[in-house]
Amino acid sequence: MPVTMTGGLQIMPIDGIGEVRPGADLSRLLAAAAPDLADGDVVVVTQKVVSKAEAQLVPLDPGDPASKARVVEGESVRVLRRRGELIISETRHGFVCANAGVDLSNVEEGWAALLPEDPDRSARRLRDGLRGRLGVNVAVVISDTFGRAWRRGLTDVAIGCAGIRAVVDLRGTADALGRELAVTEVCVVDELAAAAEMVMGKATGICAAAVRGVDPTWLGRGEVVGEVVRPPVEDLFR
Amino acid sequence: MPVTMTGGLQIMPIDGIGEVRPGADLSRLLAAAAPDLADGDVVVVTQKVVSKAEAQLVPLDPGDPASKARVVEGESVRVLRRRGELIISETRHGFVCANAGVDLSNVEEGWAALLPEDPDRSARRLRDGLRGRLGVNVAVVISDTFGRAWRRGLTDVAIGCAGIRAVVDLRGTADALGRELAVTEVCVVDELAAAAEMVMGKATGICAAAVRGVDPTWLGRGEVVGEVVRPPVEDLFR
Repeated sequence: MPVTMTGGLQIMPIDGIGEVRPGADLSRLLAAAAPDLADGDVVVVTQKVVSKAEAQLVPLDPGDPASKARVVEGESVRVLRRRGELIISETRHGFVCANAGVDLSNVEEGWAALLPEDPDRSARRLRDGLRGRLGVNVAVVISDTFGRAWRRGLTDVAIGCAGIRAVVDLRGTADALGRELAVTEVCVVDELAAAAEMVMGKATGICAAAVRGVDPTWLGRGEVVGEVVRPPVEDLFR
Repeated sequence: MPVTMTGGLQIMPIDGIGEVRPGADLSRLLAAAAPDLADGDVVVVTQKVVSKAEAQLVPLDPGDPASKARVVEGESVRVLRRRGELIISETRHGFVCANAGVDLSNVEEGWAALLPEDPDRSARRLRDGLRGRLGVNVAVVISDTFGRAWRRGLTDVAIGCAGIRAVVDLRGTADALGRELAVTEVCVVDELAAAAEMVMGKATGICAAAVRGVDPTWLGRGEVVGEVVRPPVEDLFR
């Protein structure tokens, strides 16, 4: 490849993690599946396996079709909209999403997976675990699949992160014509989650990916709940 | 790298396009900057240079601070919310975004860039132009930077595409435990736009990127306006 198209990012699936059981040590599984992780890599892990490892699972009543709705309501602090079986609500973390993130796919029959209690903390633990096991300083993003108010189709976004700023503030940076940019706060952890989703798919059983080549200025202390969740006072649509 | 982390995607910046002037032949500029594009690559191009090449530029009245708001209103079919100078509206294409996509950054002083009239058509033209010049069959995504109702920070999304399905429908595909997935329609063009943004940045003057390694089953006829824009009848938040 000529010089024009070198550089950039590599998005690599991490295969071989297998089925994650409640209580599993996810950093051990990740370290075994991706021993070649390097400093500055971003490891993106899907919420589903984090929730499983953290035993964030609840049984559903097989005789009661309203059982899932009750779980969703229990995970919600506020219901925004209902349409048929779909509930759009705000979770304890402040995420606005379908069914409070409660999910039955890729979970054993009769059980539902809840979101991690504190996904930023989950990300910090994974980052610490990978540092301990592999001696590498990686960032971690925990991803989940959300819908959007005005666009069809789902995309993956970040629900937790560690070792990387969630939103990178380019305000005050000059644009290419030398003028100051008014507002350009880019949610890089959501872009990383979206990029990683493309190598994981939904049906392949790959639950993690590594992104190599991210701008090193993005690395550092960061969290999703404090940086990305829009406080109700700023919200025009709640 | 061991086999666990091979495969995946490469996101490569396309540098050297330089300043794009009204009437410029963008496929010629892209072909010259990225002669090594290959069949199956996805070329992501920012809206800004597409709008410039298509002369979608309007002068602002320097003596009138309301001049931009009038342009935004002219580009909107419906205003959803206002807060201070921010207008959230629906464009003719059906996009719900800030300021109807009208943008002053990276545009000459005194001018505003509008969205392309038909960004899917713009993408088809670029795809055809690249096929003619380089003999390659690439997909094209035109990206823009949008905010989100309930999440801080901006991410890039697709406003037009060609040669790739915008939304890939995984409904009916079995999940990793062999059960049918209820709804998993992934908006892959938005994920491609987000991934590409990370190698372009806002202030570096890089306006295009190539993504290599996408799932070949995604390639084919697709468009953003028909597939991604959520019709008002499905909309819970307009």
